[in-house]
Amino acid sequence: MKNKWLAILLLLLLFGGFFAEERPPSEGAKEEEGGEHGFAQIFLFIALLLIIAKISSLITKIGQPAVLGELLAGLILGNLVLLGIDVFEPMKSNEIMLFLAELGVVILLFQIGLESNIREMKKVGPNAFIVAILGVVAPFVLGTYVVGPALMPGLSFNAYLFIGAALTATSVGITARVFRDLGKLQTKEAQTILGAAVIDDVLGLIILAVVSAIATSGTVSETEVLIIILKAVLFLGGSIAVGQKFAPYFNNFFSRIHTGIGMKFTVAIFLCLIFAYLAQLIGLAPIVGAFAIGLILDPVHFKFFKNPIIIEDIRAKLRKDKKMRDEIEPVLAKHADKHVEDLIEPLSHFVVPLFFVITGMNVDLSALMDINILILALVISLVAIIGKALAGLGASKECNKLLVGFGMVPRGEVGLIFASIGRTLGVLNVAQFSVIVIMVIITTLISPPILSALLNREK
Amino acid sequence: MKNKWLAILLLLLLFGGFFAEERPPSEGAKEEEGGEHGFAQIFLFIALLLIIAKISSLITKIGQPAVLGELLAGLILGNLVLLGIDVFEPMKSNEIMLFLAELGVVILLFQIGLESNIREMKKVGPNAFIVAILGVVAPFVLGTYVVGPALMPGLSFNAYLFIGAALTATSVGITARVFRDLGKLQTKEAQTILGAAVIDDVLGLIILAVVSAIATSGTVSETEVLIIILKAVLFLGGSIAVGQKFAPYFNNFFSRIHTGIGMKFTVAIFLCLIFAYLAQLIGLAPIVGAFAIGLILDPVHFKFFKNPIIIEDIRAKLRKDKKMRDEIEPVLAKHADKHVEDLIEPLSHFVVPLFFVITGMNVDLSALMDINILILALVISLVAIIGKALAGLGASKECNKLLVGFGMVPRGEVGLIFASIGRTLGVLNVAQFSVIVIMVIITTLISPPILSALLNREK
Repeated sequence: MKNKWLAILLLLLLFGGFFAEERPPSEGAKEEEGGEHGFAQIFLFIALLLIIAKISSLITKIGQPAVLGELLAGLILGNLVLLGIDVFEPMKSNEIMLFLAELGVVILLFQIGLESNIREMKKVGPNAFIVAILGVVAPFVLGTYVVGPALMPGLSFNAYLFIGAALTATSVGITARVFRDLGKLQTKEAQTILGAAVIDDVLGLIILAVVSAIATSGTVSETEVLIIILKAVLFLGGSIAVGQKFAPYFNNFFSRIHTGIGMKFTVAIFLCLIFAYLAQLIGLAPIVGAFAIGLILDPVHFKFFKNPIIIEDIRAKLRKDKKMRDEIEPVLAKHADKHVEDLIEPLSHFVVPLFFVITGMNVDLSALMDINILILALVISLVAIIGKALAGLGASKECNKLLVGFGMVPRGEVGLIFASIGRTLGVLNVAQFSVIVIMVIITTLISPPILSALLNREK
Repeated sequence: MKNKWLAILLLLLLFGGFFAEERPPSEGAKEEEGGEHGFAQIFLFIALLLIIAKISSLITKIGQPAVLGELLAGLILGNLVLLGIDVFEPMKSNEIMLFLAELGVVILLFQIGLESNIREMKKVGPNAFIVAILGVVAPFVLGTYVVGPALMPGLSFNAYLFIGAALTATSVGITARVFRDLGKLQTKEAQTILGAAVIDDVLGLIILAVVSAIATSGTVSETEVLIIILKAVLFLGGSIAVGQKFAPYFNNFFSRIHTGIGMKFTVAIFLCLIFAYLAQLIGLAPIVGAFAIGLILDPVHFKFFKNPIIIEDIRAKLRKDKKMRDEIEPVLAKHADKHVEDLIEPLSHFVVPLFFVITGMNVDLSALMDINILILALVISLVAIIGKALAGLGASKECNKLLVGFGMVPRGEVGLIFASIGRTLGVLNVAQFSVIVIMVIITTLISPPILSALLNREK
């Protein structure tokens, strides 16, 4: 029976190949150019990268985060050209693929913003703040003023700045995912790390804006730095103040047009993209805007819109039975609150892996042939780990300070964003870019086993 | 209090404008070119088109389908240039916007395929088939051989072919949405129309393939037509036969890597995009492939993957209470079955409106200044309505045949696809393209009021 179907499949593929070859080559070329029907090749690219990204999530089976798999998959695909396989080369520079990747980071930072919460940030209090500040200052000083100049003498100050800045990042996504995987999200250590990671993200984004502007304008004047900090603080603080006040009116207005789920999704995405655009207009990175508006938006801002149909269907069934209603209603309420995040999730599954795979594709492994770069990457990684471990000293007495410190180690997407912006601005060359990406990979790779070892020792 | 926040908002916008102007123009130009941070303008385009599309859904308040609002919104935006406002002109030809629009149709046809079902098609039986055949043959013959040559003498046979083909379309999406809005989805008439519309879609896509190939290769030989029909039947039939057999193995394989919702989404999108690519490789339109694989995929094919967390959470709560479980489990099972469709929905909200708005933008209203084109559009619309009304004669005796006929009238997206492919191939000029789009708008606009009038008379 199976053979029969296999035969049909083969026949179909042969026919497909036959007809494909039969077409005059000029027609094929015309269709690949663009226009209504010229995007089939991009569909193929996207399909392949998405499925490869998901296959690379096999890495979660050995306790590593999926993002690492996506990076490694991209790293392999992007370096197949070293073996003479150049079929993936067009994807690296295809305008549409690059756009989707950029949309990927914007959506990711929007999601991280949505999952974070201004009130939670205030709650975790001074300890998280001290951890965050230590976790930014220690690696930045070590990277920019000590290890950078010592290991790589003769570079521009901008290059040291970017290396130091990339070391300051903490990945909320990776940190949260690691603790969730280990079932330790509710520990005091996890809460401190999450709070600090959120504050770190904001600090990191201010640093990114400052460092980018310094690199772009060439000179470093204190007034300029002040203006940049003022711009970042004004934009972030202003967005938060104004956004918190106006988001309800804005959402209420659009809910009067339609209360449907499509409108709920569209209003969220509209705000995300408009703030990404506004951030760039002011001179910040688009991701800063997407993160800021994500931080502002709360489930309560979407109360005017419909809940998922399943929730309404079940509520209708529960109307008669008070006991069951009391039991199930909290589950329904929790999911109703998460609804906007759930709506963004599929779009995120579509574009976020493209960012990580394409980022991985841009790591040039041939740069590693140089033993100096390899050693450099290892030393920078060590500095990255020590710098964040020091941050743990800021945790409260009841915490395992080592655990908090190592919880801050994974650099993830934010570190990569620093590296790729440094690369785009021409401040970092391929070798330095690769060093940072390897540092990100190592800090991300090394954290889950260390964290689980520390957590097991606690028991 | 409100004034204070308004003042801050104004200040922020002024600062934004100030800093934006302060930047040297060369830098702005560089950033708009592409690269890591050059896509902010595209973010703005997408945000504006999406929110305008949703505002246009105000049209649903007067009983019209949202798709009509999107078309009209696009039509207005695209023709603002006639009033000297050219700010929306770059969107019409932007490569990335055109790609997202094309992805929009592919995703839409994939969704329509997912919502349709091979078994249901078999169930509705001979009546739906007769209605479908009549609903294709009558408008096609009227359009291609009678009204086309009579009203527009001197055109190429290809142009008549495309006009006739565009008249054959039935929009499953619009038809289903109209009946759902009126709460009449379970009537015999609705079932017949839905079955016929699904068959019509397949017939329409075969016609599209045949007509496109005839237009592309220039000549019309019977062997070629046979080969095209054979290709279409082989691809569709082959995909269905092979896909039904292999989809479970394929999905089972990927569920072994990860059973998560991200994998479930990715496997569905991968299949959609790969079949869109394969269809084009064989010479069919990408949408044919997306529709075919959507038709094949069933909830049962995704049984290896996880259900939404809310379903698992509620099932855990219900474990103890058999009575409540019996009551709520059917609701949960229904939503578990719809999960893949629900996962595609947000991506669809992102790209599908872009297709309709951009399609609307390409209607050139200045062509309407010609009174002949206007009259033509009205007559063609009348033929479109009569052609489909005739199809109602094929309905079973218990049905209101007039209701079935008028239920087939809305042309929707498929008619537009014919028009835009005809335009892309250079077979239809702007005037003829506009005639078809106006026919689509009129048939779509006229159906909901007629249907509700007929349904109310029944009562």
